[in-house]
Amino acid sequence: MTKKYVYSFGGKKAEGSAAMRNLLGGKGAGLAEMTRLGIPVPPGFTITTEACLEYFKNKQFPKGMFNEAVAALTRVEKIKKEKFGDPANPLLVSVRSGSRASMPGMMDTVLNLGLNDQTVLGMIKKSHNEQFGYDAYRRFVAMFGTIVMGVKREHFDEAFTAALHTHRVSLDAMLPANALKELVATFKKIVMKEAKRPFPDDPMEQLQMAIAAVFDSWFGARAVTYRRLNNIPDTWGTSVSVVAMIFGNRGDDSGTGVLFTRNPNTGERRFFGEFLFNAQGEDVVAGIRTPLPISALEQKLPKAYKELVSIFNTLEKHYKDMLDLEFTIEAGNPYLLQTRVGKRSAAAAVQIAVDLVKEKRITKEEAILRISPASLDHLLHPMIDSTEKIKVIAKGLPASPGAAMGRVVFSAEDAEQKAAKKEKVVLVRAETSPEDIGGMHAAQGIVTSRGGMTSHAAVVARGMGKCCITACGDIRINEEEKFFTVGRNDTEGGELMVREGDFITLNGSTGEVILGEAKLVKPEMSEAFQTLMRWADAVRRLRVRTNADTPQDAKMARKQGAEGIGLCRTEHMFFSEERILAVREMILAHTVEERKQALAKLLPMQKNDFMAIFKEMEGLPVTVRLLDPPLHEFIPHTLDEIAVLAKEIDWPVDRLQSEIAALSEVNPMLGHRGCRLGVTYPEIYEMQVQAIFEAACELKQQGVRAVVEIMIPLVAHQREFAEMKALTTRIGEEVMKRYKKKVAYMVGTMIELPRAALIADEIAKEAAFFSFGTNDLTQMTFGLSRDDSAKFLPTYIKNNILPEDPFVTIDQSGVGALMQIGVERGRKSRPELKVGICGEHGGEPASVEFCHKIGLNYVSCSPFRVPIARLAAAHAYLKEKAEKGKKAGKK
Amino acid sequence: MTKKYVYSFGGKKAEGSAAMRNLLGGKGAGLAEMTRLGIPVPPGFTITTEACLEYFKNKQFPKGMFNEAVAALTRVEKIKKEKFGDPANPLLVSVRSGSRASMPGMMDTVLNLGLNDQTVLGMIKKSHNEQFGYDAYRRFVAMFGTIVMGVKREHFDEAFTAALHTHRVSLDAMLPANALKELVATFKKIVMKEAKRPFPDDPMEQLQMAIAAVFDSWFGARAVTYRRLNNIPDTWGTSVSVVAMIFGNRGDDSGTGVLFTRNPNTGERRFFGEFLFNAQGEDVVAGIRTPLPISALEQKLPKAYKELVSIFNTLEKHYKDMLDLEFTIEAGNPYLLQTRVGKRSAAAAVQIAVDLVKEKRITKEEAILRISPASLDHLLHPMIDSTEKIKVIAKGLPASPGAAMGRVVFSAEDAEQKAAKKEKVVLVRAETSPEDIGGMHAAQGIVTSRGGMTSHAAVVARGMGKCCITACGDIRINEEEKFFTVGRNDTEGGELMVREGDFITLNGSTGEVILGEAKLVKPEMSEAFQTLMRWADAVRRLRVRTNADTPQDAKMARKQGAEGIGLCRTEHMFFSEERILAVREMILAHTVEERKQALAKLLPMQKNDFMAIFKEMEGLPVTVRLLDPPLHEFIPHTLDEIAVLAKEIDWPVDRLQSEIAALSEVNPMLGHRGCRLGVTYPEIYEMQVQAIFEAACELKQQGVRAVVEIMIPLVAHQREFAEMKALTTRIGEEVMKRYKKKVAYMVGTMIELPRAALIADEIAKEAAFFSFGTNDLTQMTFGLSRDDSAKFLPTYIKNNILPEDPFVTIDQSGVGALMQIGVERGRKSRPELKVGICGEHGGEPASVEFCHKIGLNYVSCSPFRVPIARLAAAHAYLKEKAEKGKKAGKK
Repeated sequence: MTKKYVYSFGGKKAEGSAAMRNLLGGKGAGLAEMTRLGIPVPPGFTITTEACLEYFKNKQFPKGMFNEAVAALTRVEKIKKEKFGDPANPLLVSVRSGSRASMPGMMDTVLNLGLNDQTVLGMIKKSHNEQFGYDAYRRFVAMFGTIVMGVKREHFDEAFTAALHTHRVSLDAMLPANALKELVATFKKIVMKEAKRPFPDDPMEQLQMAIAAVFDSWFGARAVTYRRLNNIPDTWGTSVSVVAMIFGNRGDDSGTGVLFTRNPNTGERRFFGEFLFNAQGEDVVAGIRTPLPISALEQKLPKAYKELVSIFNTLEKHYKDMLDLEFTIEAGNPYLLQTRVGKRSAAAAVQIAVDLVKEKRITKEEAILRISPASLDHLLHPMIDSTEKIKVIAKGLPASPGAAMGRVVFSAEDAEQKAAKKEKVVLVRAETSPEDIGGMHAAQGIVTSRGGMTSHAAVVARGMGKCCITACGDIRINEEEKFFTVGRNDTEGGELMVREGDFITLNGSTGEVILGEAKLVKPEMSEAFQTLMRWADAVRRLRVRTNADTPQDAKMARKQGAEGIGLCRTEHMFFSEERILAVREMILAHTVEERKQALAKLLPMQKNDFMAIFKEMEGLPVTVRLLDPPLHEFIPHTLDEIAVLAKEIDWPVDRLQSEIAALSEVNPMLGHRGCRLGVTYPEIYEMQVQAIFEAACELKQQGVRAVVEIMIPLVAHQREFAEMKALTTRIGEEVMKRYKKKVAYMVGTMIELPRAALIADEIAKEAAFFSFGTNDLTQMTFGLSRDDSAKFLPTYIKNNILPEDPFVTIDQSGVGALMQIGVERGRKSRPELKVGICGEHGGEPASVEFCHKIGLNYVSCSPFRVPIARLAAAHAYLKEKAEKGKKAGKK
Repeated sequence: MTKKYVYSFGGKKAEGSAAMRNLLGGKGAGLAEMTRLGIPVPPGFTITTEACLEYFKNKQFPKGMFNEAVAALTRVEKIKKEKFGDPANPLLVSVRSGSRASMPGMMDTVLNLGLNDQTVLGMIKKSHNEQFGYDAYRRFVAMFGTIVMGVKREHFDEAFTAALHTHRVSLDAMLPANALKELVATFKKIVMKEAKRPFPDDPMEQLQMAIAAVFDSWFGARAVTYRRLNNIPDTWGTSVSVVAMIFGNRGDDSGTGVLFTRNPNTGERRFFGEFLFNAQGEDVVAGIRTPLPISALEQKLPKAYKELVSIFNTLEKHYKDMLDLEFTIEAGNPYLLQTRVGKRSAAAAVQIAVDLVKEKRITKEEAILRISPASLDHLLHPMIDSTEKIKVIAKGLPASPGAAMGRVVFSAEDAEQKAAKKEKVVLVRAETSPEDIGGMHAAQGIVTSRGGMTSHAAVVARGMGKCCITACGDIRINEEEKFFTVGRNDTEGGELMVREGDFITLNGSTGEVILGEAKLVKPEMSEAFQTLMRWADAVRRLRVRTNADTPQDAKMARKQGAEGIGLCRTEHMFFSEERILAVREMILAHTVEERKQALAKLLPMQKNDFMAIFKEMEGLPVTVRLLDPPLHEFIPHTLDEIAVLAKEIDWPVDRLQSEIAALSEVNPMLGHRGCRLGVTYPEIYEMQVQAIFEAACELKQQGVRAVVEIMIPLVAHQREFAEMKALTTRIGEEVMKRYKKKVAYMVGTMIELPRAALIADEIAKEAAFFSFGTNDLTQMTFGLSRDDSAKFLPTYIKNNILPEDPFVTIDQSGVGALMQIGVERGRKSRPELKVGICGEHGGEPASVEFCHKIGLNYVSCSPFRVPIARLAAAHAYLKEKAEKGKKAGKK
């Protein structure tokens, strides 16, 4: 049996369905499903993604594919009662791409295909509208010329603008038929000149070329970039849907629109859409004409509107989710052209999921799984502080919520370049196009002077969870000279000029553009968010702690739901101005006595630090890591700083210089740090342990319960740990005896060296807990210095050698394999061993899921990411449950 | 049943035997065994090592031990017909330590125990020799005072020298009885003054104290150091043998000697011993009086000599090995006091083992196992080039063979300090004592002006495999002012002064001390050595290759038996003067074109390198590693050098400086190196691969067969390897097509990152071979930079956290565990996968054994260590066979 490459739909029957998304793409599956539901959809057919992948093997259509397509086309002709290429009664089609994942605007669509100098006459005859016919024809030539034949869009735009000028009109709809007819001829000349071949007049040849072009667009630069940013594999391929044309540009009882069944920014349960009368779909999406709100349709075409509302409701009920729909009204009759689950802001996603549970459409567990944990990142971003005075200089549409602050740039390239240098930038454009996504990704936020709520900028920014303002007509951009002006709403009256590099702030929730750096504050969590997090907490098994070095962070994290501190880095406390001198004296000490004197100065300060943190975390465990970084990190390295220090400690500069030189290391990451400091200078760890226990005892005197976990860093050998544990226990017991108090404490270790994971059974004999330090573990396992990898990692990512940054998401086959070994061997010696993770991976959803899978007790992450980890932990549990269910089902 | 702590021997019966070495120590077991063999041995008893370990628990003798000892003493009294402490007929005993392993001079012995003011009279009465009696007494007080009561030896020496002066004699034997008697009184006063307690007169108290002192000496500083250097565990403990005294100092028909049954330097089958007439054992070992060769005994006491020869032969036959014997002749009657397998030079060990096979005493396999692979190191050390003119300034006894060159130092501490700074030193001392072993270990070689072939210096140096000259009376040492002089053999006639820091060279095989740095050459291998290596090759399974970067090294290694090159580092070729400029141009190139131009200059040079190496290794595999180190290693870093380079390449200095700064890395070990260079600058690897294949093809044209293995370094991800393999294959096939030749080649990888070992199954799908780069693998697994570890590793070794340097011997539980994972997973994907090791561990015997165990195909090491690896591989096989035999026996 040969493979089936083409699936028909239309006339209330469809070969495909929503379940065939992988084969038919989102668009093809949606058209088939809607057809089955009895919703008015123009007839057509979809060529499968398999055909696309076959095509890439030899750059030709797989055998039989085009014949199948022609057969399906005949079926469309029958339903529409028109004939493809028939000069008297021509069938016109659109050719559209559609992949498994939604990639808005990333690939190409050709409308009005089938037109030539003969068929256009048939179209005119049927519509009694010459202007309409030639308008469709000129659009087709330009689209086909651009997309299929590779002519630059500008050439057609120039000729079009020239025509407007010649005919002294300002809008395309105002061009007379003969002008449009002339344009067709001009456009064909442009094609001949630029593409060096004539425009194809044979509709079948047009169809063949268009299908191939859609296939090819899968490897177009924009699509490739989009896939990389969104982790979509190249091997999915795209489908091609060929659909009978419906004309929204047939007059005032026609038009085209897009609609979200709920508000994609807030989640509010109300239709949210835009409509353009007498227009084709491309006009809405391109954001060139500013569309009307959907309510305009209700007033002007109430019957069609009513019919549409019924369709929208049917579809939402069927798909059990907020939908993003495209429709066209042709002569008062609505047709649905696309249905897909709508992209939405993180806040809206939460609101919608919680509402759908309340509406009894989905379960709580489904609601949890609907929210991507990473998307919460967006919800947790700061907002503009409403109590501060700000200077609003312009206002546009609030296209994607949140706030953003940065220096103005006017091109995507500039945005990428500056962001690479860690500068925060805001991208200001007349409108964005798919070429700009790299720059949009790099920018803090985006403003466009044109476009609407569903323009390219708006859709893409929402998907990225990035603040965006569109249709901000107040600003006038001079791209060439790199400034924009806003007129007369400056209090002084004149024009205000904002140059490249000036700071602006965006409020994506109100559409306000603010001059300068506005103060940003953390967002308030919505009620829906709190509800969802409660549901998540109820199902997850993994505990979530935070990495916090200050009482402020501890407090914030506890508010975000942290169930303890998984990593309190004591060295961060060493850097403050009033301490650093004592720290340096300690480091430069030549004798144990000198070192102890310096440490004695630090003791009360460290004790106070710990008291404050323990107090914030009262009753919850706090894991304190003893000093970890190499000592030279605390010492100045520039000549000026050295001179200052030399004066402070009353040393000759050259002596200090040579001491500092002696401290330097070839590979500090692999050097004298972690518990190696504790072994060589036990007095340092003794001071820290003393401070910890004194803090806990004094709090106990005040009735505050501290739960102390002392963590020994960079352990490679069980004897190293045993020695540091003995030191800790000895000092701890001494302090508790002195205070006559008992403090709950454990001594454990970080597992951050490959060796530690490998000999975890030996270490666990002594250690009460493990915490995977996956930052360093990744560096050692890969032999990859975070500080130096910038020189080659870009090539690695470009060449697809490392598709994911192992410092962002746990490298499961390497680092993860070691973690698994560590957990298994550790628990072999000590079944009750508590195991956590405190690397930055602890707040990254895929890594959290992995931690759940290998049986960790908790993850610890930055305060800001605690909710993400909580949700990710719930996801991990639910996925595991689903898989178990599947397995049980199979048995 | 209570434990038995004491084992008697004497009167032709013994409770112990040679098999009880662990319990009785080497000395106790030997005395028991000799007693059983009917050899004259003074009666006595041995207190077990178990008693010693019990003693350490509470610092008191275990219950019943001393009672058992007293009972055994009664048995000795009966055999000797003397009574311990009896003023009329006193029994005297020696109290000696003896551990499982021989630790020459490391622990303490007390002679003549049982003497006091009364018993000395009985002794005099029986011997009719007052001088003899008081000589024994004064020796006893000094020895007991030093060893048991902790008085410094110098105090007694001073008093003794004063007595010699007073009585105007130069030798101790010339002191009259009354002078010796006075000395006893003086010595007792010294004890009272220094130890703050009277000298014990009660023989039982003396015995108790002496036994405890011997136990305590197990944790004496010297013993602890010796054990650390020789990997002897603290938990073995020492035994104590209490033996009836035999007096070698009873007159001219008495004496004491030591004897090796074969020559311990050459292995020659001839008695090799020394004898002192009228002396006690301590006089020989201490090296204070220069002893006579054993032949002197044959002339003076032929009957005793004949009896001894028969004993020596009986013992050698019994033990099937060359023995180190201590004996005493008392009034013409010989007694054996100790038998042990004799320490010997590596050359002697080989000769003896091969001879014993020829004498049909042992099997070939036993012979192989008798030679410690590490000891070959010594055999393979360079010797002084005999064709060069050298200036011999002094001559002593050739106490330990080999050659050594270094700067003169006069104290063990200086030797240790300078060696720590990587300086080569020669230790020059009047004589050495156990306190000096640290310094002896640190020195290249040792010269002593006093002592003999069996003095402390000689015995210890031979054990260490270190060149040593003793009894070099030509040199006069001024320790205080740190120089030595040699008289009148300077051509100018005067005295020659050699100061600390001057270079000298030692020839340990001739006893010559040479001024300056003599040229050293590799030794010729003896016939016995070649025989042994042939036997080893016949049994081993593991192949042995070499690490060689030059044709010279390759040639040398092939001579040493290397079966291929396991690591040819291409970067070493980059450093030569005529190439480095092109290398630097390549590194500083800004475009691929510039880089290719620079590489084009290197191509012919690299090709010639490979041709020369392939030629030397004709028919054997050569593993070429593509460029590995970070590029900044090839770039100058000092201002002066940068200025020179800037001129050469015609760049402004500041531009060059900033380029160099941009190349620097925070952690170069984890940086832009290995195949990361190949991924980012493929043109570098392309040039290298081209050079390799062109070399192989051109050799093929000449009829020389190269077997090429191309090795990709620092692979972390299978896709990295796949990309570099594709590059290699592409270039290789191109070159072979151009030359119309086929070259046998494989592409494989180093496994030197933990991740590579963990995902070995993935990598092995593509890689034809693995080679463990255990240097870097150790750094990554431990998170330990070789360059920086000096700051803390000493503390780690001192605190017994890391008993062995993981860069010397493979850390089996960490790094080794990863290797095992790598081998298992790799062979899972590719069962025929060839796996080797090319880290420096490849020539270290314990590591070689480990490599055998985990199923590696080959080890690769420096040319110099190839024979060691060959022998170690044979050991590994034989040990495995023995274990299998044991297991099979148990079934």
